[in-house]
Amino acid sequence: MDHTPYLFPSGGQARLSDFVTRARDIPQDKDDGQRLLSEGISRLSEMQEKLYASDRHSVLIIFQAMDAAGKDGTIRHVMSGINPQGCQVTSFKAPSAEELDHTYLWRCMKALPERGRIGIFNRSYYEEVLVVRVHPGILAGQKLPNPPDPGDQGFWNSRFRQINDFERYLSENGMSIIKFFLHVSREEQKQRFLERIEDPSRHWKFSAGDVKERQHWDRYMAAYDDMLRHTSTPWAPWYVIPADKKWYMRALVADILVDRFNALKLEFPTADEAQRLALKEAENQLRKET
Amino acid sequence: MDHTPYLFPSGGQARLSDFVTRARDIPQDKDDGQRLLSEGISRLSEMQEKLYASDRHSVLIIFQAMDAAGKDGTIRHVMSGINPQGCQVTSFKAPSAEELDHTYLWRCMKALPERGRIGIFNRSYYEEVLVVRVHPGILAGQKLPNPPDPGDQGFWNSRFRQINDFERYLSENGMSIIKFFLHVSREEQKQRFLERIEDPSRHWKFSAGDVKERQHWDRYMAAYDDMLRHTSTPWAPWYVIPADKKWYMRALVADILVDRFNALKLEFPTADEAQRLALKEAENQLRKET
Repeated sequence: MDHTPYLFPSGGQARLSDFVTRARDIPQDKDDGQRLLSEGISRLSEMQEKLYASDRHSVLIIFQAMDAAGKDGTIRHVMSGINPQGCQVTSFKAPSAEELDHTYLWRCMKALPERGRIGIFNRSYYEEVLVVRVHPGILAGQKLPNPPDPGDQGFWNSRFRQINDFERYLSENGMSIIKFFLHVSREEQKQRFLERIEDPSRHWKFSAGDVKERQHWDRYMAAYDDMLRHTSTPWAPWYVIPADKKWYMRALVADILVDRFNALKLEFPTADEAQRLALKEAENQLRKET
Repeated sequence: MDHTPYLFPSGGQARLSDFVTRARDIPQDKDDGQRLLSEGISRLSEMQEKLYASDRHSVLIIFQAMDAAGKDGTIRHVMSGINPQGCQVTSFKAPSAEELDHTYLWRCMKALPERGRIGIFNRSYYEEVLVVRVHPGILAGQKLPNPPDPGDQGFWNSRFRQINDFERYLSENGMSIIKFFLHVSREEQKQRFLERIEDPSRHWKFSAGDVKERQHWDRYMAAYDDMLRHTSTPWAPWYVIPADKKWYMRALVADILVDRFNALKLEFPTADEAQRLALKEAENQLRKET
């Protein structure tokens, strides 16, 4: 699959409106998508073992999206082949009192993956320039000294810079960062909400607040647009994934991950001379046992 | 006290060799120093209460020094008047296996003070450009991808930039950062080591490794010099404190802290109209109790 149409270029020239919510080149057949996805999953699982064994890099995968775009399902389906020992998912909901007592990156800093592991953020510090921007009242709860004016673009630009600096530090110290915006259309969100309402077994996925949030759609899109333009960097690019077709979104995410893992050129570590001798000695000792 | 001679200017022009280990203008009498120190302590204690009550800022105080320069004693004496509920001291020793599995700032990020509190770092991430620079073998244990060449100034410059970016983020989000290098002379360190060896009650403070480290004195001074020149910033300046006279060092640290707290213009929060009404109502209710 060609990923170029989904990579948000760094440099601030692109716009969210250049990106589709429904890909044009998708396979005719859903079965093709399933096959693509399962191929991706088995290759991912292989690469995760190498990531774990070589113990040099870590991988941070960030998912951001509007409600019902498919974050939870994508994480479940794409990462299902992965050994949970090497993978940790953290969902960031409304911050706790302790978290609010710290600077805004703190709770995500704590949850970063260790070397050799994959960390998945279901939402992230990007909420600080999304929901906080749409509902600037939240800023007051952060008790910043010299309370910022949410209408001031300069304030958001400084958050973007802080985030870029943070991600650059991580990337320079061995963390590979991959960011997905699952891009769903307003119409498709409506359909999915209706499905949840009609199906009692999915009521737990639905809250009336979600429909209320939907009224701020245009402001959310403006916030996403500004975020993408300022924080898609060479060291931590954003991918804008068309999310109106779930199975295609999942296959595409898996395929991009495989590509990004490939770029790390992971290999199982090879034993050096000393280790080979130690292995040989251990073998001899085992064979001598009676 | 005039602090200008002890502030390491940002901009990279100053040198460590411009700074003394024994101040020239110290009071004649040790009692004067004690008085200065206790004045400083009681003002600090007052200001900490305001910091805690106003709940906007946090304060991070970093101590770095050669062995026996007086970090522990300075922390004990200067911070002794402070309510421990609003103050946490973290000593950073050799990193644990879990800490080594994360990028180098991680363990310090986790330990950052909450809003309204003082965090004290006894050693810090600055060890990453000090002991790690003098003993570059440690770098190998950090398992960075593309292992860096410790002889490459560019590698250390990128660490300096990462640290500056990190501190700028903290400062922009309400953390006041004050960094002390306790500057002891090689001769004074020798005297203090000898005292520790001669006094059985202080043997626990002494390890033979300390004397071995001392052989790298010049390389440590070069590392400190480069660190100070690159990481003394307007948002997180370094103070180079003459440490050969312990009581003067402590009084000076307390005085600088008082000054920096003053600059925060901390006030007890005043109740607004709604809070005043609520207080009045609570009072009435209490008085009505029989």
